[in-house]
Amino acid sequence: MPDARRFTELQGPVPMYRGGELPSVTIAYETWGELRGRGDNALLLFTGLSPSAHAASSAADPSPGWWEYMIGPGKPIDTERFFVISLNSLGSCFGSTGPASIDPSTGQLYRIDFPKLSVEDIAAAARGACHALGIDHVHTVAGASLGGMDALAYAVMYPGTYRDIVSISAAAQATPFAIALRSIQREAVRADPAWAGGHYAPGQGPKDGMRVARQLGILTYRSAPEWLQRFDRERIEGSDASPDPFAMAFQVQSYMDANARKFADRFDANCYLYLSQAMDLFDLAEHGAGSLESAIRKVDARRALVAGVTTDWLFPLWQQRQVAELLEHAGAAVSYHELDSIQGHDAFLVDSDRFAPMMAAFLAGMPEA
Amino acid sequence: MPDARRFTELQGPVPMYRGGELPSVTIAYETWGELRGRGDNALLLFTGLSPSAHAASSAADPSPGWWEYMIGPGKPIDTERFFVISLNSLGSCFGSTGPASIDPSTGQLYRIDFPKLSVEDIAAAARGACHALGIDHVHTVAGASLGGMDALAYAVMYPGTYRDIVSISAAAQATPFAIALRSIQREAVRADPAWAGGHYAPGQGPKDGMRVARQLGILTYRSAPEWLQRFDRERIEGSDASPDPFAMAFQVQSYMDANARKFADRFDANCYLYLSQAMDLFDLAEHGAGSLESAIRKVDARRALVAGVTTDWLFPLWQQRQVAELLEHAGAAVSYHELDSIQGHDAFLVDSDRFAPMMAAFLAGMPEA
Repeated sequence: MPDARRFTELQGPVPMYRGGELPSVTIAYETWGELRGRGDNALLLFTGLSPSAHAASSAADPSPGWWEYMIGPGKPIDTERFFVISLNSLGSCFGSTGPASIDPSTGQLYRIDFPKLSVEDIAAAARGACHALGIDHVHTVAGASLGGMDALAYAVMYPGTYRDIVSISAAAQATPFAIALRSIQREAVRADPAWAGGHYAPGQGPKDGMRVARQLGILTYRSAPEWLQRFDRERIEGSDASPDPFAMAFQVQSYMDANARKFADRFDANCYLYLSQAMDLFDLAEHGAGSLESAIRKVDARRALVAGVTTDWLFPLWQQRQVAELLEHAGAAVSYHELDSIQGHDAFLVDSDRFAPMMAAFLAGMPEA
Repeated sequence: MPDARRFTELQGPVPMYRGGELPSVTIAYETWGELRGRGDNALLLFTGLSPSAHAASSAADPSPGWWEYMIGPGKPIDTERFFVISLNSLGSCFGSTGPASIDPSTGQLYRIDFPKLSVEDIAAAARGACHALGIDHVHTVAGASLGGMDALAYAVMYPGTYRDIVSISAAAQATPFAIALRSIQREAVRADPAWAGGHYAPGQGPKDGMRVARQLGILTYRSAPEWLQRFDRERIEGSDASPDPFAMAFQVQSYMDANARKFADRFDANCYLYLSQAMDLFDLAEHGAGSLESAIRKVDARRALVAGVTTDWLFPLWQQRQVAELLEHAGAAVSYHELDSIQGHDAFLVDSDRFAPMMAAFLAGMPEA
């Protein structure tokens, strides 16, 4: 299989935001475009919970990436101008150090002995990776969903190392609703006996629990109007004849099930639990003695793009407005967008009609070197 | 334990809406007030998915019922005027025949050999129970959530046997979003090995799966703004010191967990699966050759109360408007209310400030005998 990933090692021990440390850290990343100077044209891209670093295709890996429409020559994040760095998050399972990695101090998998993971640790690992790549100061820090939380944490933690911020469908802190939802997803995984307290064999594990968790994820990443438009009450042919009295009967079930099975096969359950919990714990106010306003004052962005989606009920618009207002409070020139998309939280992945022009316009503000 | 339930036996075999039959059916019910005539002052009340027939306290069972604020002497459903009949749904587990009952033809529990359950079967069993009680024609058929679906089905199936309808936070058909959500809940139950294909010991069963399913229920029965107002990001003291890396950290988790455990202990898993699926399958259009408009023409209600809640995302307002418009189409004088409550789908259970006056005003239209 083609693989465009490269790897960088951060010098350990790497302290973790909520205590503990990692003896060493590997970060998997991909890049597109040519680096200028010490990072003047660098765009540091954080991912959501589930993707790898493969945000776009390249010669080394021509398979489509998770933001294929957004990144490439002549695309909104134009790789003829930008040097794009996409990272696999610390704690994930696509090449970066996480619960599914081997703890060099024991020779065993970390599993649930991995220290508590925070959004701040993902941001810090990214900072370390940039440093290792010779990048002192990036043009833009960007991300959506968890990636947007990462970008906001990065901005608060490392003022002076970036110029602009892009925060899409993110939040300054997790709401109790989102916490409750992710907590249910984690319960589904942990209630599966195959989880075995985290001690399943590599590649095995709680597939049923992960399937339930991911179905709930899929449901919350989109919107009820979209399900209605796409599937309405369309039935699965022949389901009435099934001997299983609870056989799937509707196309919407079949869609969710197929997607969830793919995820359960490719994502490590312990990594999922750690990343999910990191989102719950995220609260930018921790950087301002309990005050979001105090925390945000540390940010020294010149410009910020903040965007959300009308039908996003996981990271609702009021949270996007809050992020925009906070960044204005910090002195950034904020370009704020409420996009009227039917595709909910995940609209940024699929609704190129709305997201591409917005991103292109924002980044067009970039002066030529 | 005090018990105000009475039981009525329907003469079998009882045919089921989607095929199969039950050799006999028992329906558990409670009543309040005095019956006049053949039902002139009767209010037939259907319940949501989870309650028993115990809708209100009485001398025989002074414990508070699930609609305690609504039903009683001088209350909105005034038992000095109305004879209220509340039924435990067919398929449930609080005295009525369901998957947790013994199949008289085998002497074994039905479990998953219970025939497919539909909202129509619940309505038909209620009609049978009324008949057995000597009630030909009720004053009002009422219900909320699943109970509202039951009431709508009853109205379409038995014109000429009721005068008015009350449909609260219900729907004329299940949306794909609600189907997806309930499907995930059922998957959580069925993925629990303790479900054992439905063959768990009575009183035992998939407690973990039921707990996950119910947590998701609780989450969807309320609204994100309510969680924010009630819990915000309030922490559980000492959770950081837990040896469990995924210990509950937020009060919202603790609340959901405690409630879900209670439910898992008291509700039979197979009954839950059947009732949940019945809601997915509900589509009033089946009574009109695929057309809601055709189906609703069978309704001959004089008046209808239709109400929904602004923050209900499980049975959203557009579905309430749809029910109201359909009933107007059927010639009923519709009193339609969009209640601005923060408590979401379950507001009818708790928001007496908004629901009590509305119900009282609607029922005040009742002429004295």
